Parts: sequence; structure tokens; C-alpha cells
Amino acid sequence: MALPLRGGARFDPRLHLVVDPSARGPAGTAALVRTAVAGGVTVVQMRQKDGSTRELVDAARRLVAELRPAGVPLIVNDRADVAVAAGADGVHVGQDDMTAADVRRIVGAQAIVGLSVWALEQLAEATPGVVDYVGVGPVFATTGKSDAVAPIGLDGVAAIALASAVPVVAIGGISVENAASVARAGADGLAVISAIVSSADALASATALRQALEDGRGVAAGARG
Amino acid sequence: MALPLRGGARFDPRLHLVVDPSARGPAGTAALVRTAVAGGVTVVQMRQKDGSTRELVDAARRLVAELRPAGVPLIVNDRADVAVAAGADGVHVGQDDMTAADVRRIVGAQAIVGLSVWALEQLAEATPGVVDYVGVGPVFATTGKSDAVAPIGLDGVAAIALASAVPVVAIGGISVENAASVARAGADGLAVISAIVSSADALASATALRQALEDGRGVAAGARG
Repeated sequence: MALPLRGGARFDPRLHLVVDPSARGPAGTAALVRTAVAGGVTVVQMRQKDGSTRELVDAARRLVAELRPAGVPLIVNDRADVAVAAGADGVHVGQDDMTAADVRRIVGAQAIVGLSVWALEQLAEATPGVVDYVGVGPVFATTGKSDAVAPIGLDGVAAIALASAVPVVAIGGISVENAASVARAGADGLAVISAIVSSADALASATALRQALEDGRGVAAGARG
Repeated sequence: MALPLRGGARFDPRLHLVVDPSARGPAGTAALVRTAVAGGVTVVQMRQKDGSTRELVDAARRLVAELRPAGVPLIVNDRADVAVAAGADGVHVGQDDMTAADVRRIVGAQAIVGLSVWALEQLAEATPGVVDYVGVGPVFATTGKSDAVAPIGLDGVAAIALASAVPVVAIGGISVENAASVARAGADGLAVISAIVSSADALASATALRQALEDGRGVAAGARG
């Protein structure tokens, strides 16, 4: 679960914030990310579907500059070229993106590669050395991603967590209220958008999500041990 | 002007066909490209703006499989990640894409990198070793690309051709009728979309474009020499 990164940091999959820099501009995005990291976010994923490649690279570079001093990796959704050009730490791919193996060839052995899965058979591609974590979901119904498949629920998370050879990061409709239950189902980490981005107090929400995750994982570890 | 490629072929910038595989599907695209190569096309550039990354990689792979036996390189517009994943021969970037220097770092020294320019000051980025050719235009008004800048005309081509350290490939509204004049203005190559794609006889059009280019370049070389 701990990978050496280019920046010397280690990959801690516990709390991912997924951000679209085009939604709030450079200054707003930087402020949001700073707050989220202060609250315990351990990974930031940039997911911006519109904009030119140059805009994407510029946005990713700004995030790297913001995150690197804090030792928090930036993962770019879909675009391995943008990740390499911006000096980001990894790439997250979905089932409609490039395969994880293709991404790995582009970004090299040190980078973080994540893969979205929602069914057990999709774990076949998620082998250690190729994939560093799987993004599993949507756990619950969500408005955050328009093309999401049907929610897999806590049972779905549990089944994939049992079978996965790499850390499981649950995503989709995760809130402060349900975070501990997701961790208890076996998630190693949580990924959120609106639970932090749309929160009136992003710092408090990030802190609470991190705490709920730790609480839930403690219970899960106790139940396993 | 001649680069060693991965496939052992050499880069011949004379006649580029720009294709969007989503416009006619896999079989139609393969047939078009085969005909165009038979008519004298020396480079194919894939320019598809829509579709998932996986679709883009699949389309590029099909084109590589079609072109490699003929020794004709495939260049992917904008997406260095797609080019690398598909095993294509190069990347063409515009002013809104990644910089040519960033592309070069991703694709390596052997790949072909092209850059769109329409003004002399944009040649600053087009240094040998980073950029293998510049795409210059639009020469004439065109309906082929919606975000095109104002036509630069034959004078614009001539000015850039005089100043460029790398081969100049003219693009934008080029037809069988005007191709020789573009070559006489100093273009080393021509890039077309509709002159071949929308032609009732793509083979004849490609052949005629190639012949017009050679005629015009012969005159240009005679005038220079």
C-alpha cells in the first residue's frame, strides 16, 4: 500500500478528493485543495472532462505546485499525457479510458495507477505492479458523475474488497454519515466529491470523513483479526 | 527531412491525409486510407475530437495496422497518450494543445512531432529535434476545421517557409486546383481533408495532389536554384 513516488512521498489511499478545476477556477481550486489537505485528504484526483489539453496541463501543474509541498500526490483522471507533462504523480482510468497496462507503460513504474471497477471480473486487470488501487463504486446513488453505473452498495464493496489484491477506494455518494459503514465493509480508502466540495465547511467535512474512515477501519480490522 | 522511425520507415512530409475515424467507421476509414496511400499519401494524421480514450486508442491501433505494412506513418492529433498506447509514429499539436517540448518528452526522440503555426513568432517553438515539421495554415478559407484562424494565403506560407528550420506542410482549403501554387510558395508538403475525403474519386484526387505538389516544388526549386 505504500509506493515510493517521484516526490519521495508515499501513497496513502485513505481519503481522495476528486476535483474539477474548471468548476471554480485556479484560485478557488487551490483554496479548496489546501483546506481539504488540512482536513486529512491524502490524494487529490483531477477530473476535468472539458477544456483544451493545454488548459488541462496548466490546471494540473497548478495542483502539483499546491500539493507537492504537502506531500500529497496528484492523480489525473484519464489523461496519461497530461499527467506526464504536468509532472503529476499518477493516473486514474475508468473502463472507457486507456487500459491500466497501457497507462503503466506511459507513466512508468513509480507512478500511481488507479482503475475504476464495479464488478468482480474487472479485477482481472487490477494486478499489483500494474494497478496501485481500484476505485470501487458507485457505492450509493450519486449526482457527481453522469455516466455512473447502478450503485453496488456496501455488499458490492465488501465482495470486491475481499477479492482485490490492491487497496480498495470506495467512491460514489459517500458522506460523513455513511463513511464509517463503507470502511467497515472493507474499503481501504474513500473518494469524495460533493461531501467536501459542496460542504459549507470543507475543513470540518474532510476531518469528519477521515475520522469516520479510521473508526470504521478499526472496527473492520477488529472483526477480521 | 528524413527521420528514422520505429517501423524503420522514413518521414516523408509530402502529402498528409487528415482523417476522423468516427466519421465513417472502422471499415470505411480503412478503405479510405488504403486508397489514399495508393494515390500517394505519405502521412496519415488521425484527428478525432470526440470519443472516449479507449475508442481513440482502438481507432489509432486499427490505422497503425493498416498503414505500417505500407511504411506510412500514423500521426495522432493532440493526444500523445493515445499515440504511445497505440504504437503510432507521432503526434501533431496545435497552439491549444500540449507544447511540442512536452510532447517530445512523452513520445521520445524517434517519434514525429508536428506543430501548427500561422505566424512567424510561433516558429520559435519549432526547433529541429523538438519539432519535425510545422503545419502551416489555414492557407485558404476552409470548412474542415471550425476553430480555424483567418487564412494566411500564399504570402503567409512563403514567409513561414523562408523562416522555418523544419519542413513546412501547408493545410487549409488545399485542392487539386491550387496545390501547385502552394508548393511554389515554398511548402514542402500538403495536408488535406476534404480534397480526398469528399472526393468522388479519392485515388485520382490523391494522385493529382501528389503530382501538383511535385510540379510546384520543381518550379520552386528551379526558382531558388
